[in-house]
Amino acid sequence: MSSDRQYAEAGVDIAERSGFAASLPAILARARRPEVIADAGPFSGLFRLGDRYTDPVLTASVDGIGTKAKLQMAAGRLDLCGPDILGHSVNDILACGAEPLFFLDYIAGSGLTTVQKTQLVEGMADACASVGCALIGGETADMPGVYAEGEFDIAGTIVGVVERDEIIDGTAISEGDVLLGLPSSGLHTNGFALARRVLEVALEESPAETRARLEERPDVLEGLSLGEALLATHRPYHQEVLPIRHLIKGMAHITGGGYAENIPRVMPEGLAAEVDTAGWNVPGIFELIRSRGEVAAEEMYEVFNMGIGLVLFIGDEDVDEATQAAPEAFRIGSVISQAGSQVVLRGI
Amino acid sequence: MSSDRQYAEAGVDIAERSGFAASLPAILARARRPEVIADAGPFSGLFRLGDRYTDPVLTASVDGIGTKAKLQMAAGRLDLCGPDILGHSVNDILACGAEPLFFLDYIAGSGLTTVQKTQLVEGMADACASVGCALIGGETADMPGVYAEGEFDIAGTIVGVVERDEIIDGTAISEGDVLLGLPSSGLHTNGFALARRVLEVALEESPAETRARLEERPDVLEGLSLGEALLATHRPYHQEVLPIRHLIKGMAHITGGGYAENIPRVMPEGLAAEVDTAGWNVPGIFELIRSRGEVAAEEMYEVFNMGIGLVLFIGDEDVDEATQAAPEAFRIGSVISQAGSQVVLRGI
Repeated sequence: MSSDRQYAEAGVDIAERSGFAASLPAILARARRPEVIADAGPFSGLFRLGDRYTDPVLTASVDGIGTKAKLQMAAGRLDLCGPDILGHSVNDILACGAEPLFFLDYIAGSGLTTVQKTQLVEGMADACASVGCALIGGETADMPGVYAEGEFDIAGTIVGVVERDEIIDGTAISEGDVLLGLPSSGLHTNGFALARRVLEVALEESPAETRARLEERPDVLEGLSLGEALLATHRPYHQEVLPIRHLIKGMAHITGGGYAENIPRVMPEGLAAEVDTAGWNVPGIFELIRSRGEVAAEEMYEVFNMGIGLVLFIGDEDVDEATQAAPEAFRIGSVISQAGSQVVLRGI
Repeated sequence: MSSDRQYAEAGVDIAERSGFAASLPAILARARRPEVIADAGPFSGLFRLGDRYTDPVLTASVDGIGTKAKLQMAAGRLDLCGPDILGHSVNDILACGAEPLFFLDYIAGSGLTTVQKTQLVEGMADACASVGCALIGGETADMPGVYAEGEFDIAGTIVGVVERDEIIDGTAISEGDVLLGLPSSGLHTNGFALARRVLEVALEESPAETRARLEERPDVLEGLSLGEALLATHRPYHQEVLPIRHLIKGMAHITGGGYAENIPRVMPEGLAAEVDTAGWNVPGIFELIRSRGEVAAEEMYEVFNMGIGLVLFIGDEDVDEATQAAPEAFRIGSVISQAGSQVVLRGI
């Protein structure tokens, strides 16, 4: 279209954008729920909440996946961005007991091809479908000059729902409660700035060099390549947690800021979480980062999840029932009475 | 904190991040509603929808403001990003008849200072408050290497609500209906890639050079500086539209893609919108872009709003009532029966 010539010269190709836009309805249809009235409708997505809930509280969270996307780009695995951001998002709203309803994504960059954009949105739709969440909207923006050439960022917002009287907020946590940990699949989406620097991947080198680095198989990874360990996607815990949410007093999603920042978010004043770090085997990827980077053990727990993606606070009397329903959950500590610091890490 | 040393060297300063995070609750409190249970709570924001609605349909939209942010940055007016993104977002959900409930922002960049981040979030909170929307969450990410140094991007997701039987979706539009236009405040948030290129602002030059360019006062702007014209924020139309939504059959938010892309989104098959472009005075900023860039008139209407931010489709018999309630709305065309193209622009 000749009339788009000027705008295309300015870095925005409306025809390309329209072609991509035309492919979207079929992709979004992969992640539809019966409540969706218009997925990415005329100007917004519509989701019929209906009268299923007595006193519905909506819960929402927005997140990105940081520089993990650089590794995914270099590895040609943009389909993994969606699972990562969904895993992170689902856990953020799960921490108050909510189940996911719908999701909207934001993708922006410089020089992303239509194939790459499609791969990103397809990964997002499939990830939404896998957690039972509708994908009802998104925005894809080309911004040369803002993003470094060939770079992009991806973010998304999840909206979920929880009944007012079923909100889990940590206020019921008391001395003697047990901390159960659910295993992470790896770094999830946090600490990649440090991990990339220490492991020297996706810094200034070419994508081909990054791919070569990701092929390395250090002994400590026990057969996994560096790429397999680093690219493992953020695990969502809704299937483990929702069936036992009535037993849970509080949850901490171990993300940026590690144990020190995330556990206190749900702890009442005067109590502390005593975590026995000797109680589980820290996955090899964390050991690799610690040893190669000579990172202090304390800092490792301030940056990474160290193998535990979600911490559940449960009354001692309910632990057996919880671990029978969620067999992967295991004891990692208990709640003690203590003023001041609300996290005590033993065994590091 | 010495234990943050490694992570800080890798480009992420946890102490800085914590300081910024500590300032957030007071900022978010500026944009609170009674329904907010925990603004940016432990891991997500909570908003009590309650039982006010009979058959509530949630509506959501995600958007950025594109490269307009480059101008705001150069002009030292990061407080304007929030009003722009809120204006855009409110109109996107308003187009189906919804009112805003809450908003979450995403800010990412390279080298943003704490002062700049605070200015961004404060602008966002004040903008939310001005449209009666709660700000219940946000994410701020530092990503050197992904964003060009000193650059940033801002996006946000709005969630609103509309009763099922009050959704406005254009299906009731019929031949003879009237198009009312509501005046825009300027470019709103679209077409800045082209505008910047044509007007030669915020391309490769320094911020000081951009500021100097923005001081220009071309005659066609009738006293306004280029900066004042370009930085005018995206006008939200909820106050004009919500009181008369029962009269409205369809709405088109004139954003990226202009008239050609946005009007057909709400038009039933076999009908077209005939717009008389001679029916209003196109603001000077558009004339400046057209003349300096030698942009074809047709393309101007495919990229820019040309002075009309929102188009309302209303039955002829209801026009008087609508314009009495919303005196700024005026006739810009009517609905005709026509196969094929759904937009006919007269007078260009």
